[in-house]
Amino acid sequence: MELKKEKDLELEKSRHSLAHVLAKALVRLYPSTKLTIGPAIDDGFYYDIDLDHSITPDEFKVIEKTMQEIINKGEEFKREVVSKEKALELFSGNEYKTEIINELPDGEEVSIYYTGDDFFDLCRGPHVDSTRRLQNYGFKIHSINGAYWRGNEKNKMLQRVYCYAFKTKKELADHIAMLEEAKKRDHNKLGRELELFTTVDYIGQGLPILLPRGAKVIQIMQRFVEDEEAKRGWQLTKTPFMAKSDLYKISGHWDHYKDGMFVLGNEKTDEEVFALRPMTCPFQYQAYLNKPRSYKDLPLRYDETSTLFRNEASGEMHGLIRVRQFTISEGHLMCRPDQLEQEFKNCLELAIFMLKTLGLYEDASYRFSQWDENDKEKYIGTKEQWDEAQATMKKILDHLKIPYVVGIGEAAFYGPKLDIQIKNVFGKEDTLITIQIDQMLAEKFGMEYTDKDGSKKTPYIIHRTSIGCYERTLAYLIEKYAGAFPLWLAPEQVRVLALTDRNNDYAQEIKNKLFNLGFRAEVDTRNEKIGYKIREALSMKVPYLIIVGDEEEKNKTISIRGRKFENQSGLILEDFVERLKNEVNSKKI
Amino acid sequence: MELKKEKDLELEKSRHSLAHVLAKALVRLYPSTKLTIGPAIDDGFYYDIDLDHSITPDEFKVIEKTMQEIINKGEEFKREVVSKEKALELFSGNEYKTEIINELPDGEEVSIYYTGDDFFDLCRGPHVDSTRRLQNYGFKIHSINGAYWRGNEKNKMLQRVYCYAFKTKKELADHIAMLEEAKKRDHNKLGRELELFTTVDYIGQGLPILLPRGAKVIQIMQRFVEDEEAKRGWQLTKTPFMAKSDLYKISGHWDHYKDGMFVLGNEKTDEEVFALRPMTCPFQYQAYLNKPRSYKDLPLRYDETSTLFRNEASGEMHGLIRVRQFTISEGHLMCRPDQLEQEFKNCLELAIFMLKTLGLYEDASYRFSQWDENDKEKYIGTKEQWDEAQATMKKILDHLKIPYVVGIGEAAFYGPKLDIQIKNVFGKEDTLITIQIDQMLAEKFGMEYTDKDGSKKTPYIIHRTSIGCYERTLAYLIEKYAGAFPLWLAPEQVRVLALTDRNNDYAQEIKNKLFNLGFRAEVDTRNEKIGYKIREALSMKVPYLIIVGDEEEKNKTISIRGRKFENQSGLILEDFVERLKNEVNSKKI
Repeated sequence: MELKKEKDLELEKSRHSLAHVLAKALVRLYPSTKLTIGPAIDDGFYYDIDLDHSITPDEFKVIEKTMQEIINKGEEFKREVVSKEKALELFSGNEYKTEIINELPDGEEVSIYYTGDDFFDLCRGPHVDSTRRLQNYGFKIHSINGAYWRGNEKNKMLQRVYCYAFKTKKELADHIAMLEEAKKRDHNKLGRELELFTTVDYIGQGLPILLPRGAKVIQIMQRFVEDEEAKRGWQLTKTPFMAKSDLYKISGHWDHYKDGMFVLGNEKTDEEVFALRPMTCPFQYQAYLNKPRSYKDLPLRYDETSTLFRNEASGEMHGLIRVRQFTISEGHLMCRPDQLEQEFKNCLELAIFMLKTLGLYEDASYRFSQWDENDKEKYIGTKEQWDEAQATMKKILDHLKIPYVVGIGEAAFYGPKLDIQIKNVFGKEDTLITIQIDQMLAEKFGMEYTDKDGSKKTPYIIHRTSIGCYERTLAYLIEKYAGAFPLWLAPEQVRVLALTDRNNDYAQEIKNKLFNLGFRAEVDTRNEKIGYKIREALSMKVPYLIIVGDEEEKNKTISIRGRKFENQSGLILEDFVERLKNEVNSKKI
Repeated sequence: MELKKEKDLELEKSRHSLAHVLAKALVRLYPSTKLTIGPAIDDGFYYDIDLDHSITPDEFKVIEKTMQEIINKGEEFKREVVSKEKALELFSGNEYKTEIINELPDGEEVSIYYTGDDFFDLCRGPHVDSTRRLQNYGFKIHSINGAYWRGNEKNKMLQRVYCYAFKTKKELADHIAMLEEAKKRDHNKLGRELELFTTVDYIGQGLPILLPRGAKVIQIMQRFVEDEEAKRGWQLTKTPFMAKSDLYKISGHWDHYKDGMFVLGNEKTDEEVFALRPMTCPFQYQAYLNKPRSYKDLPLRYDETSTLFRNEASGEMHGLIRVRQFTISEGHLMCRPDQLEQEFKNCLELAIFMLKTLGLYEDASYRFSQWDENDKEKYIGTKEQWDEAQATMKKILDHLKIPYVVGIGEAAFYGPKLDIQIKNVFGKEDTLITIQIDQMLAEKFGMEYTDKDGSKKTPYIIHRTSIGCYERTLAYLIEKYAGAFPLWLAPEQVRVLALTDRNNDYAQEIKNKLFNLGFRAEVDTRNEKIGYKIREALSMKVPYLIIVGDEEEKNKTISIRGRKFENQSGLILEDFVERLKNEVNSKKI
């Protein structure tokens, strides 16, 4: 990881140097510009300026041209250190820089950076040595937003000039092309166009409504996951979505997670206070606690298609990715110490199997999420308990050769996690799957088993998901496949189009045959031009279109069209059914 | 219905007369007895008495004998009317009767009833003419409970003597036998013994935890229902379990159903107030509202495996029947007036199909639930709207020859319902399935379609369930089958028992073969006596036990046992698999 980090620093330095080039260009073009700050960001940099004139997109080209001229001249970046008093003098007409300088401790030296001889800016650096180093860079101003000085709405609104910047023109072009493609794939847009989901103001943010097409995809995934888990020895439970506060007081949620929960009732006035569950753990433990357990009963594996609720802030909601209610395959496995590694491995293999089947595995990476020992508020347990839990997990991860990065402060409040991270089309990373090892909650709930020697022991619990929450997984699938799901997941697999009204009965007959065989088939017998019907079916990403006209009806054949193959005519329905069956059964991506 | 009502009055009169016989017997045996009231109830009658001596079950026989003596003597029930003053005098030593008499308007006459010449009681009547009429009656004192005078815990605790009473000794015996059998079948007891569900104090009442066996039965039913509905043209949705109060204000729930809902947050202090949904209607309507609809799109049928929440009082909770959270197959069908009757019929046929498949149809009856026009608080809409909706529904029900009874005040707040009622093993009736017709909510949410002539119309909505809520249905199935589910629903279908340790591998091999073929098979290779293993498997109501010993292993055969058939030996596994498959596929009850 270190290598990558050094590279990023080089890029960051260049981007920030480009921000100075932009600043110089802006001051040249708009002399009344007051500069404020201009940091590097993920895909380039921005600069916040105070300027009476509102810059419009028409002017971007001129600014970029001026920047290129500065770069081409090979101007030197030169650092100069001055006293705080001198700095205040140099930036006397700029209240923003003055404010920054005044916040520095008295007597501290201030660095300024020259770009050529005729421009300098207040800056910590570092910078490249000359604008010549930026010669190969690809950059492009892409937008201007309003931004309050220091993010405070009581301050003046500035203009934030955003600029992409990459090491080569090619990388810039690739980035722009990627964004264009990403925009087309954005699940929050495409998912609505394809009638997979919608949201409604009076229901609320983060509470998506899955329309029939989206609900169908989730139903298929859910059954697939439940069945696969049953095959692997998991037993399904179905536990309530809420509980009295009493439960959360035992589990520690009341003290460590209450802000993230929806609470029903008021502790001061109501006899019973309930909360919607943010996790399944203490509910599913009740299945274990239902009777005494022996070492011979272990491992016990419980899974559940579980709905959870998290009281996220309104501003954080996003499509199907950040939501207030979601459904997930949660599982808890109780085992003995000698079973822990093998069972952990099984859980990981299950998750990888799911990701591979869905086609998401190549976008995944691993994070070993640990506690932050300085954040005592967030975690239960002692340092000794955490050290032991993390050492146990590290041993297993290293033994299984999992290529993880470490995330400090990313653990659950009761134990460390292995997180499987997925990047969305815009490059933003989120956790899709987690596998955790825990003994602390088992202790709190008095879970135990009688060991061979008759003594009572606390089992290890593996908390795991095998697929991400279904809503979020659906979002990734929409973006991954640009809405064109693999056949086994497609909400509508086949649409039969009648070429003319004369062929409506035949079209209906074909559709019925497919439907009765269990395929998700629809028929379009509307009195519309065939070209229109085909375009509409393709825009809804239906994998197979069957077109039947007089020719087909006479010969008892079908013609097929689709996104992924050549048009074919004169097919026998039975042969096509075989093809469909094979494609569905193989779960071909 | 009138005939049945008259009969019931006759029985009630006799039961109340028996209460006087009991009172007379009690006074004879315990002269210090102070009588209070003694009404007829569903299965007999009770009498509340104030007596220092606590009557014990040992004394029931003597009381019953004394009652029988009074009956055998053929004593006359004689009514006498006296003034209020006279009545106060007659009952001067009895503060309870005195209290009752004092509450009567001054000047009103009071009736007393003699039983024979030596006993009278304050009573409105009516009574049978003589105890001789009670000669054939079967009665039996079955319990004594404490009961506060007038149900008020500030008053004195009395002894309530409960007595079954039926027209014949045979009916009494049948009733007692039924109760014995019902007790064995009581889902709230048996469901726990069979590890189908449990409840936990710190989670809360009415929030059952479905253990793996119970969750499996529900999973099987749920998939069966979803698939059957898909075949019949229903499209699955998946909508959120909560919404802002804004939604419920449009739907009318906020004004007419708020007490029954779990509310999150406080309207006075919070920016957003949410409530958990008690019904799916306004959520599922969003699928209809997602785009403009034409008369050609109708009917549109949406179904959902929907979880609902109702804030029931703690005292009303009962096992899986009265719960605070439940899951149900809710559906809403939007159609034109010309489609209404056929679609209603389809919904009813679907419900009947489900009940028949589950084996519950013979326990069902129909109730046409109408509004109560005197209870304006409970219902939205005008008298005209209700008259029209109920007339429409009546026409359809009569046309379909549904043998319903009318339930006034049992309608939903927005429209009339056809309720399918089921009796549990104790004879208590509950609604399992409902089908409703509604236009009022459609109007409130601005649902419309463009008719042939271009005009905007409001569709009819049929609200329907096709199977009762899964938890309640599971309760009925447990009681119906005394826990011995039909094979297709059994959480464990086959258990393979090894006769000795030598046969463990072979037993495991048989189990694996069945499991891999998709059967829910378990294996018992514990070092226990075969008789013990068999008893345990039978007590868990496993339909098929496979027993394998040396003989079976040598000949590559199996022996089978079960509750419903003779033991069989020397079977070939493949033949047994065929038998299992046929029994599962036919959903044999």
